Amino acid sequence: MAHKGLLLVLSGPSGVGKGTVKNAIVKNKVFPFEYSVSMTTRKPRPGEVDGKDYFFVSEQRFQEAINQGELLEYNEYVGHHYGTPVGPVKKMLAEGKDVLIETDVNGARTVREKMPDGVFIFLTPPDLHTLHLRLEHRGTESEDVIMGRIREARKEILVMQDYDYAVVNDTVANAVDHIKAIVDAEHVSVKRVIDDYRKMVEEE
Amino acid sequence: MAHKGLLLVLSGPSGVGKGTVKNAIVKNKVFPFEYSVSMTTRKPRPGEVDGKDYFFVSEQRFQEAINQGELLEYNEYVGHHYGTPVGPVKKMLAEGKDVLIETDVNGARTVREKMPDGVFIFLTPPDLHTLHLRLEHRGTESEDVIMGRIREARKEILVMQDYDYAVVNDTVANAVDHIKAIVDAEHVSVKRVIDDYRKMVEEE
Repeated sequence: MAHKGLLLVLSGPSGVGKGTVKNAIVKNKVFPFEYSVSMTTRKPRPGEVDGKDYFFVSEQRFQEAINQGELLEYNEYVGHHYGTPVGPVKKMLAEGKDVLIETDVNGARTVREKMPDGVFIFLTPPDLHTLHLRLEHRGTESEDVIMGRIREARKEILVMQDYDYAVVNDTVANAVDHIKAIVDAEHVSVKRVIDDYRKMVEEE
Repeated sequence: MAHKGLLLVLSGPSGVGKGTVKNAIVKNKVFPFEYSVSMTTRKPRPGEVDGKDYFFVSEQRFQEAINQGELLEYNEYVGHHYGTPVGPVKKMLAEGKDVLIETDVNGARTVREKMPDGVFIFLTPPDLHTLHLRLEHRGTESEDVIMGRIREARKEILVMQDYDYAVVNDTVANAVDHIKAIVDAEHVSVKRVIDDYRKMVEEE
């Protein structure tokens, strides 16, 4: 059966280690993902190849891509634009290939609007997970630090509720294991396979 | 965080190998499941222990259990009744333990009505999965055999659509691997963990 590929969107709060987890997935070849090449307005660094590491474009070309709806999501980071061209992603999915996109929470929200059947993973910092332990031992930290952390946690949880999965990034290996399980489970979820089965018996 | 346990319901068409897959999970201790002890009206076989293998009861006691709503699901097999007492299942789930129930498709439907947040896995015969290949080589099988198989497949697909996952039982090892991934993924699904996170920051 020709399944449509899975679009996996890896996101989470800034500093949580999205890039490290993504690189571990790429390096260890944990599962056969396709990676979309991003478009950026920053200059190439030594050794970076246009069309492989990034599509290096001018600010004008980037704005044109935005206006023409060529980008699935885009964001700004230290003065430069980064975006995911939508064409290659749709092509790879149609060919049955799984595609991994790593992006910030704003980017993930945009992808969700355009491709709601993607699988959205929110990487959480381990201290969000262990916050309750800290709260039980308040003596060891100042009230200000605790209250600040709680406010931040509330914001993170508000964002998390729009995702499908929340994976704690306690160790990169654990996070990768969970992501592998998620991909495997999604591949056998009824909502993804039922149409293939239906098509099979309807063709007669 | 005190998670509520996961209720996993393993079902599928008769003869698909549900019991074999369940036994493989139990034997290999793939993951730490609790198993509910079923109630039955059949006589104990040599070596079977009451309260461990089954709760052996009279037909009258079984009917009373049905009438009092003590059973999560029940069914009849070659003249005997089998049922899952609901009390122990709810207790184990509340203690954060994962519970596995293996039952036929009618039993699974009843469990779905009573405990809709369970995880429902439909085990599919490999020939449902490979039916399309057979159809492409019709010359090798009679039209009657093919049409009968298609009618049966249509029925199976109608049942499957009420499940969360469809796992092909091509080999027991593969089926167990998929079920392991499903359990892992469900443990980090946002719909299951978000309440724990919310409780964590609301308590302040």
